Amino acid sequence: MLGKTYDSQVCSIARALEVVGERWSLLIIRDALFAGSSRYVDFQRSLGVATNILSARLDGFVESGLMQKRRYSTQPELYEYVLTTKGRDLAPALVALSDWGDRWCSPNGPPVLFTHAECGGNIHHSLECARCGRVDAVGVATQPGPGGRKHQS
Amino acid sequence: MLGKTYDSQVCSIARALEVVGERWSLLIIRDALFAGSSRYVDFQRSLGVATNILSARLDGFVESGLMQKRRYSTQPELYEYVLTTKGRDLAPALVALSDWGDRWCSPNGPPVLFTHAECGGNIHHSLECARCGRVDAVGVATQPGPGGRKHQS
Repeated sequence: MLGKTYDSQVCSIARALEVVGERWSLLIIRDALFAGSSRYVDFQRSLGVATNILSARLDGFVESGLMQKRRYSTQPELYEYVLTTKGRDLAPALVALSDWGDRWCSPNGPPVLFTHAECGGNIHHSLECARCGRVDAVGVATQPGPGGRKHQS
Repeated sequence: MLGKTYDSQVCSIARALEVVGERWSLLIIRDALFAGSSRYVDFQRSLGVATNILSARLDGFVESGLMQKRRYSTQPELYEYVLTTKGRDLAPALVALSDWGDRWCSPNGPPVLFTHAECGGNIHHSLECARCGRVDAVGVATQPGPGGRKHQS
């Protein structure tokens, strides 16, 4: 068993991956965010994922607060899974991953374009330095933050 | 077997996850990017990951062009794994994931701060609309791009 946690890692990347790092997780979130999927059958049709895995992921997202489970039919009893603010807040990370996939894994050009719903402009992402403006990836350094090991008793 | 590809998905997020979506992958890239790790023992010490998994990930990264394998000692014969431009280009996606983890999974505050190596300012990740400026996650829509199914023969 590989487990699904990274217990030794005091790191927000590791913590994020504990919530959304399992196989299919980010594609389910993608469908909920960008394809308007909310019903079990929506996800199943789009992804073709095994039903036991899909159920486990959706239940896990409810448990970790990424989705809310709402009944939309009583006979038969059917539920939809709706992203919370916490779940929707994964959009920037998905756009960043998608941009990387566009650049490095999509020789025919981007399969999907992200656009701003309000004005139709293309959406991209960037790293930004709060002091001097933009920054490229090479210039990123790290230092311990307030929630790091050195700061905790 | 779950497999590691998402064959049915014409999507740059899925393609990115085929390269870096396996367990430990993004934490290995994180260590290479932000902790300066390059030797097998660096990664092993930092992550405590099983040696067969670490070897498989590093070899996979070389195969997919994220890392270059370079010999740094002849007796004993030892190699280091150095990120390529393709590998370093994952930094924005990792910062985006980390920002999300900081906001939602780090009640004691960020364990790690990303800073701009040149000026020391804090670095964050943001979405931007090319037409009107910034955009929040809720306003992101999608449309087929040039590499999408409808555009291919």
